[in-house]
Amino acid sequence: MKVITGGVTAAKGFEAASTAAGIKYEGRKDMALIVSRREAVSAGTFTSNVVKAAPVKWDMRLVAEEDCARAIVVNAGIANACTGEKGMEYCQKTAKAVENTLGIPANQVLVASTGVIGMQLPMEKLKAGIAAMVPELDSRIESGREAACAIMTTDTKYKETAVEFEVEGTMVTLGGMCKGSGMIHPNMCTMLSFVTTDLAISKELLQEALREDVKDTYNMISVDGDTSTNDTVLLLANGMAGNTKITEKDENYQKFVEALRVVNTALAKKMAGDGEGATALFETKVLNADTKEHAKMLAKSVICSSLTKAAIYGHDANWGRILCALGYSGVAFEPEKIELFFESKSGKIQIYKDGIATDYSEEEATKILSEEEVTVLVDMKMGEAEAAAWGCDLTHEYVTINADYRS
Amino acid sequence: MKVITGGVTAAKGFEAASTAAGIKYEGRKDMALIVSRREAVSAGTFTSNVVKAAPVKWDMRLVAEEDCARAIVVNAGIANACTGEKGMEYCQKTAKAVENTLGIPANQVLVASTGVIGMQLPMEKLKAGIAAMVPELDSRIESGREAACAIMTTDTKYKETAVEFEVEGTMVTLGGMCKGSGMIHPNMCTMLSFVTTDLAISKELLQEALREDVKDTYNMISVDGDTSTNDTVLLLANGMAGNTKITEKDENYQKFVEALRVVNTALAKKMAGDGEGATALFETKVLNADTKEHAKMLAKSVICSSLTKAAIYGHDANWGRILCALGYSGVAFEPEKIELFFESKSGKIQIYKDGIATDYSEEEATKILSEEEVTVLVDMKMGEAEAAAWGCDLTHEYVTINADYRS
Repeated sequence: MKVITGGVTAAKGFEAASTAAGIKYEGRKDMALIVSRREAVSAGTFTSNVVKAAPVKWDMRLVAEEDCARAIVVNAGIANACTGEKGMEYCQKTAKAVENTLGIPANQVLVASTGVIGMQLPMEKLKAGIAAMVPELDSRIESGREAACAIMTTDTKYKETAVEFEVEGTMVTLGGMCKGSGMIHPNMCTMLSFVTTDLAISKELLQEALREDVKDTYNMISVDGDTSTNDTVLLLANGMAGNTKITEKDENYQKFVEALRVVNTALAKKMAGDGEGATALFETKVLNADTKEHAKMLAKSVICSSLTKAAIYGHDANWGRILCALGYSGVAFEPEKIELFFESKSGKIQIYKDGIATDYSEEEATKILSEEEVTVLVDMKMGEAEAAAWGCDLTHEYVTINADYRS
Repeated sequence: MKVITGGVTAAKGFEAASTAAGIKYEGRKDMALIVSRREAVSAGTFTSNVVKAAPVKWDMRLVAEEDCARAIVVNAGIANACTGEKGMEYCQKTAKAVENTLGIPANQVLVASTGVIGMQLPMEKLKAGIAAMVPELDSRIESGREAACAIMTTDTKYKETAVEFEVEGTMVTLGGMCKGSGMIHPNMCTMLSFVTTDLAISKELLQEALREDVKDTYNMISVDGDTSTNDTVLLLANGMAGNTKITEKDENYQKFVEALRVVNTALAKKMAGDGEGATALFETKVLNADTKEHAKMLAKSVICSSLTKAAIYGHDANWGRILCALGYSGVAFEPEKIELFFESKSGKIQIYKDGIATDYSEEEATKILSEEEVTVLVDMKMGEAEAAAWGCDLTHEYVTINADYRS
């Protein structure tokens, strides 16, 4: 497997376009369109929030009922959540606009929205946006990147990644883009992620691979503990690589699962590191837990702790807060037996052992915690299970952004 | 029942003192001592965190094993948490110091600490503090208030309250003090609360009344979602009011339960309203839920939402975030059926109905949200259960305080 440049247009047969439709933002692109030249099988995972945005409901139905999908229309600025009947109509109208301009049946057009909750979409602007994008569709890397930029809200960086891997001599490409900065606590996170591949695979296995993968990737990140109404991951596979179609959980399926893990982990970490106001990606790795489930609960409890996140922002080795967060995770353990370490590209130090602080250097700890990616290692000494979770620091800028996001 | 001036010294036979022991803070009081002139029965509830501070372990044993208690020693600045064997020894030594100076057996001396995790207590300073406080013990209202000031950490206001109520013609007093500003998400919060009463009641009923009460009071507040290692509520009843001892769940017990609810609700709200960096007390009342448990889950989900808390700070009527937080609470409901209102002393407005925003005035909403106490009312229209939860807004100051609390 090899990481390559690119995103949603990396895989064969996928094209993208983007435009400034003026939905809410001024002077920037705010719509993207992804199209597969051939019919693709689709898989999706969606927010567990009881309050589901209209596009989530639209996509859930299409992914469940339709054999294939060919297009995804995305807008930033307005989430089309809590918009009642009208919101659902707008999904239908958007899909119909693609049908009218591209000839792709409306029931093969997925839609996704991100932005403020409760406002209605300006439908005429959306239609004009689609009309503007259709002639611009192409498979260049740049078109994928511009699409990744167009779907940003409070994101400060576009997020895409792609890999190549071989299936019985055939080169397969898998790439994706995502956005997500606030209201990020996926179960599924507003997190939108779009992944495309030219692999030939059955719809059932595509869905199963995605469903299993999100548990260890997107569902292990958190910016603020708020699970959005719009979280969506869509995965399209159009078969244009030319491999023999994967229909069983054989070694070829495992290769795809590995590639998917690499792509989704990379995208998930990009979202956590670009959390609203964040200055650092904050990773917690739990080692030697008794079960995988417990390892995940422990890791996620630490990256979700407001106090720990504020300490990371201050480059303060306040390990007591980490121990505290492990303690209320819901997992039983003996605090005297575990060990804690800080790690970053500046080095690694042990900070806690045998129930008390080690004799570590505060200066060294602060240096380690001043990098853009910092890791807490937790050795539970109970078994062999491990897990990682990704968050970010809690900053003044997070408060500034969210105290007045709507205006 | 009547609310009166006072706190831990309001009830007959309770005395308090405080001193500047120089444990961590300079130029302010940081130790308090509460003593009952007679033996009192004790009840306690403690943090559910697996990582429990030494004083929590000490008090849990004493409350469970000893028939009565007579003193509580509290220090601010250092939490005596994650301090190993030495931390436990310090609890013993503190109690012994009270035994030596006041003649109260060490096993009747409860201890409590709040502050930074992981540092060891300066035992000589603690002993000197106890020696300084013993001659100052008295039952004046002012002594109780000074004790409430001495236990503050990042608190900006001292917190106390008291009530009087009649039991068969006998006037009974119940009063308490607490501290708590960060690491507040009690299940039990570092929240420390000390409540005293001159009621005569059996130890079993005292403990049961407290255990039930905290579920609807302290356990319904949150500042930051972090459940501390030190959370402690202690309740002492010395019988000096002279009522016939309560040994059954009769109407007299109910009167006490009502008084306890008033005192603990008042103390809990004071903590939430004085959350680290807070500018507002943020209350969520859920009405007409299907079950009490669901009403509590819904209310707590809203007051814990970082995004909603930041919106409250910005006086921004961002109701979508409230609906989102209700949606991920774990309770199933139909978003189209519920109704949302904002309320404060500036008025009340409906903001959401039939799945969409009402035609409310943003100006009026902002006015309502600009008060020091703001309430979100959620009408679930599913049943008759209700619950309230209390938090605060998320501010720049919270980040400032916690990015560098240790130094």
